[in-house]
Amino acid sequence: MAVAGAGVINGDLDAGAAAEGLMYPPDPASKMISTIGGNVACNSGGPHCLKYGLTADYVVGMTVVLADGSVLELGGRIRKRSSGYRLMHLFIGSEGTLGIVTRVIVKLIPRPRHHAAAMVGFETIEDAAAAVRRLLQSGHFPAALELMNQGALEIVGRLLPAGFKPGHEAVIIVEQDGNDREQVLLQLAEMVEILDGVDNRVAQSEAEREGIWNARRHFGRVLVEQRKNVFSEDIAVPIAMIPEMVHRFQALAEKHRISMPTVAHAGDGNLHPTLVFEEDQRHLVGPIAAQIFRDAVELGGTVSAEHGLGALKRDFAALEHGEAEIGWWRRLKEVFDPAGILNPHKVFPEQAADEHFLDQLPGWAVKLPSGRHRSEVAT
Amino acid sequence: MAVAGAGVINGDLDAGAAAEGLMYPPDPASKMISTIGGNVACNSGGPHCLKYGLTADYVVGMTVVLADGSVLELGGRIRKRSSGYRLMHLFIGSEGTLGIVTRVIVKLIPRPRHHAAAMVGFETIEDAAAAVRRLLQSGHFPAALELMNQGALEIVGRLLPAGFKPGHEAVIIVEQDGNDREQVLLQLAEMVEILDGVDNRVAQSEAEREGIWNARRHFGRVLVEQRKNVFSEDIAVPIAMIPEMVHRFQALAEKHRISMPTVAHAGDGNLHPTLVFEEDQRHLVGPIAAQIFRDAVELGGTVSAEHGLGALKRDFAALEHGEAEIGWWRRLKEVFDPAGILNPHKVFPEQAADEHFLDQLPGWAVKLPSGRHRSEVAT
Repeated sequence: MAVAGAGVINGDLDAGAAAEGLMYPPDPASKMISTIGGNVACNSGGPHCLKYGLTADYVVGMTVVLADGSVLELGGRIRKRSSGYRLMHLFIGSEGTLGIVTRVIVKLIPRPRHHAAAMVGFETIEDAAAAVRRLLQSGHFPAALELMNQGALEIVGRLLPAGFKPGHEAVIIVEQDGNDREQVLLQLAEMVEILDGVDNRVAQSEAEREGIWNARRHFGRVLVEQRKNVFSEDIAVPIAMIPEMVHRFQALAEKHRISMPTVAHAGDGNLHPTLVFEEDQRHLVGPIAAQIFRDAVELGGTVSAEHGLGALKRDFAALEHGEAEIGWWRRLKEVFDPAGILNPHKVFPEQAADEHFLDQLPGWAVKLPSGRHRSEVAT
Repeated sequence: MAVAGAGVINGDLDAGAAAEGLMYPPDPASKMISTIGGNVACNSGGPHCLKYGLTADYVVGMTVVLADGSVLELGGRIRKRSSGYRLMHLFIGSEGTLGIVTRVIVKLIPRPRHHAAAMVGFETIEDAAAAVRRLLQSGHFPAALELMNQGALEIVGRLLPAGFKPGHEAVIIVEQDGNDREQVLLQLAEMVEILDGVDNRVAQSEAEREGIWNARRHFGRVLVEQRKNVFSEDIAVPIAMIPEMVHRFQALAEKHRISMPTVAHAGDGNLHPTLVFEEDQRHLVGPIAAQIFRDAVELGGTVSAEHGLGALKRDFAALEHGEAEIGWWRRLKEVFDPAGILNPHKVFPEQAADEHFLDQLPGWAVKLPSGRHRSEVAT
């Protein structure tokens, strides 16, 4: 177990765990800057959540300050509890709108001693999406299974491992972990064979593994450094729907002649299409994003896989959840925060979901700044 | 993913998953008779929840009928969702008091191809408890880590693996799983060495592994067959507190001259002390159980690890959670079931927690029947 104040950085918590031979698995790409409190507020995920689960799966206790000023201590240092309502889980993922989580107790697990990763290239994005399904049906349980499309590869080109051929329409990064190095490498080799790409590179050292992950991890940072106008999204669909969703991204990008590099936690069906736009394309962002949200819901997915609804996507919540469910959310909000003082204008729809949603955001929500991730600002 | 009506038997769901090379990990000892709906109502665990997590960690969607007669569809076939309140998780573990779950969608994971188990004997229960901590700190991540004390071993004596010496004060069953047989056996051997018992038996075949588990799994059944008067409990404490809790069990048993065989999901700190009593000891059951509940809470634990509060333990909820937290439960109950028609007289305390709690149970709660598990009847 670890006890952490809400402001503890995710990566620092995991580093502390590592010093004891333990691991805190949920690892958002922002783990070096994001806090545990924020992770709990959005039930954050990350590449390794495929195998190890989300933030909510690790929280066993919390201190939460309620709107009436009272302080609740929920849960504790035990892994199992079937005693009364799971109040704690109502605060997880509620984006600070029901109470303010100030401290959490999280489960830790034994840290695997060895990791191995490979990058596998595909001629088409459809081939890559099919490979994801094939691997997940093979009996292997990868520690991570990430996908990058051609647009994303172009952005991070200089960070790709030396010798990896450029020009693929998609690559998959697959990782395995475990306590026996030989076994981890063997499993990885089997998974690479099942993925069956046209090119692959298996990391032969820890440095090479870092190299493979570099391209994926620094995708967002490179966009910021290039001072691009960026609108980064975060949807999820059932695994079987990844090919269709990716196809719809491509059709949207082509129709609007806009660049849409995409990275994905493919094993979770969690896709991050990223609109990179010129100034004169700014008016396209709202309509394209709205279409992506509608498509995700139509395919049985969600408008937010790991970043919350915030102000940005609140109006799309009704598409996904329906008015009846949101009615129950409102009743819960009324119970815990009747005066509406906790993180107002978040989560709950305030107007109809349409392509003008960006223009309708309240004044305090920064409008599509240059070189920043819009969704991270607004959520 | 699997979609299951609430009445589907846990073991049948897992067998269906197995046919596809998949696994539904939460495995209560009652998996061949308990339903998924019941598992969701109590957020059930089981031996393999140490490595794989509890019922709540696998539920991604549900249909729930509310007290007002409306039907909500929550979640769906995706593994990640950070979109709005986690309403679903309020129904999980609420024992049918907030809504009636009629259907669930659960995550499945790749089924490990190989399992290996060993039984390790200890001279003292303290040695066994220390071994549990040592193993969990070693970097190994066992698939299951179960403990039985001397009293439990005497009950299942004839089911112990042939050749395993009787008379130990405790045994630990340790299991590992994975896709490579040699590696699984190697890890198991390392874990047996770390456990460092005075006797051990590593299963050399699937039949021998079944043999090792037989003793553990049929503990409850043997008690029923022997038509003993039984009161079986279900508490959890932090791992570090297992030795102290076990010490208190022994002191209680000696003080009252009562038999208290104990089985435990030791890796989760979840202990099942079982009072086996003669007719003239019936009056001791309430006071002993009440003391166990108080001890568990005092050591940072819970009065119910995996079976819910029901009517039996409802009055002890306040010891564990405090009046403030239970006040919030009452407000939630008021929101979802204002007329109190859903599973009344469960979960919420109705009178002071004291040693007479068994006498104060309402008439419909069967009173300590012979040869049945009292806690399973009442919860």
